[in-house]
Amino acid sequence: MGARRLQGMRFDVQVETSPRAGIADPEGSTIERSLPALGFEGIEGVRVGKSFRFTVEASDDAAARTLVEDVCARFLTNPVIEDSAVTVSASATV
Amino acid sequence: MGARRLQGMRFDVQVETSPRAGIADPEGSTIERSLPALGFEGIEGVRVGKSFRFTVEASDDAAARTLVEDVCARFLTNPVIEDSAVTVSASATV
Repeated sequence: MGARRLQGMRFDVQVETSPRAGIADPEGSTIERSLPALGFEGIEGVRVGKSFRFTVEASDDAAARTLVEDVCARFLTNPVIEDSAVTVSASATV
Repeated sequence: MGARRLQGMRFDVQVETSPRAGIADPEGSTIERSLPALGFEGIEGVRVGKSFRFTVEASDDAAARTLVEDVCARFLTNPVIEDSAVTVSASATV
């Protein structure tokens, strides 16, 4: 929003969180239990996490990734119970 | 779970949902407003969705994708307000 320019390049970011192995996932378990009643067979291991998408302005790919990992650790995820995967790609709309 | 075999191959699936363009995303807006107070600048367009991961047993890639898209439309997503992206890949652990 606006014409403020911080550093130059804009990157598209996706952060995907998922419950760590061994952490209970009641939402996933409930989905898995419900599927056979709807006629869906053969689906196992349902885990539910979040997907955050946003754009970030940074000088280069490495700086963007460092910033995003900092945001994840401090704000978006709970590293005690969640794994997170960060994907950074140059934005098509600069 | 168990030794039941339905059709043969097992596929790893990810379903990512996100609010459709134009649909309000209060969680994303709240995150975006909070970031400057934490010292993070240059982050825009925050949208929050869900990420479902599971495995599915099917005869081939196309059958797996058809099944997953059916599960999405009937159960996992609300197509009125959410977009969904399905990723299907052959599972390493058969």
